[in-house]
Amino acid sequence: MQLLMDGYSENKDLLQNEEFLRELLTDYPSKIGMTRISDPHIIRFTDCEPEEWGISGFVFLAESHIAIHTFVERSYVNIDVFSCKDFDTSVAAEDLRKRFRLTQWRVSLAEREWSRSSPDSKNPSLFTYNGS
Amino acid sequence: MQLLMDGYSENKDLLQNEEFLRELLTDYPSKIGMTRISDPHIIRFTDCEPEEWGISGFVFLAESHIAIHTFVERSYVNIDVFSCKDFDTSVAAEDLRKRFRLTQWRVSLAEREWSRSSPDSKNPSLFTYNGS
Repeated sequence: MQLLMDGYSENKDLLQNEEFLRELLTDYPSKIGMTRISDPHIIRFTDCEPEEWGISGFVFLAESHIAIHTFVERSYVNIDVFSCKDFDTSVAAEDLRKRFRLTQWRVSLAEREWSRSSPDSKNPSLFTYNGS
Repeated sequence: MQLLMDGYSENKDLLQNEEFLRELLTDYPSKIGMTRISDPHIIRFTDCEPEEWGISGFVFLAESHIAIHTFVERSYVNIDVFSCKDFDTSVAAEDLRKRFRLTQWRVSLAEREWSRSSPDSKNPSLFTYNGS
């Protein structure tokens, strides 16, 4: 299952705080039952349009990965939590909403497992909900 | 736009070839008009159920990231190409299908940009198509 979360934060400082992102990517996987198998990779991106700069972070999980991209001037963040094992996406989304202090957000879920032996499994379960 | 591609390869050797993955993550971004801003990160994951081992790769782009996870024994691969700029997802999917020699595949597209100033933009454009 892959959680795709996009939202607007009320706190721009968080979105440019590399330590916040590093700590989140370090500690968060175990809190949602996942196993981190690399250190977090963090990068600051400024070679762009002035309103598009931000920080990005990534960590490998035994179960797949977490990737986060912030766009500081727009107060915007994209979050991917991708696990080949099931996890409680509602709990994860609510927790991430609070951590990033999102005032508006959107969550999409994509089922990434797909069995070729079952034709019905060709229909993926993609669904989305919004919050504010 | 984010391209989520899942598929089965006819070539297990490719799915365990770290150099293939490293070269792809090094060269591919520029071929689809994207700017790579990090070296690829590659990891081999074997501390798992015997049928779940594989390799994973990730690279930061100016436009966001590419992440790939293989599951060698199942001949399965998950590919994410996430760009905050538009790109030709049909061309990218067809190219990735050929590179990974996928015999069955599924593509989902997720629009990750979302303007809070326009209520209509709360409806994301998520859609999926299959191939074999």
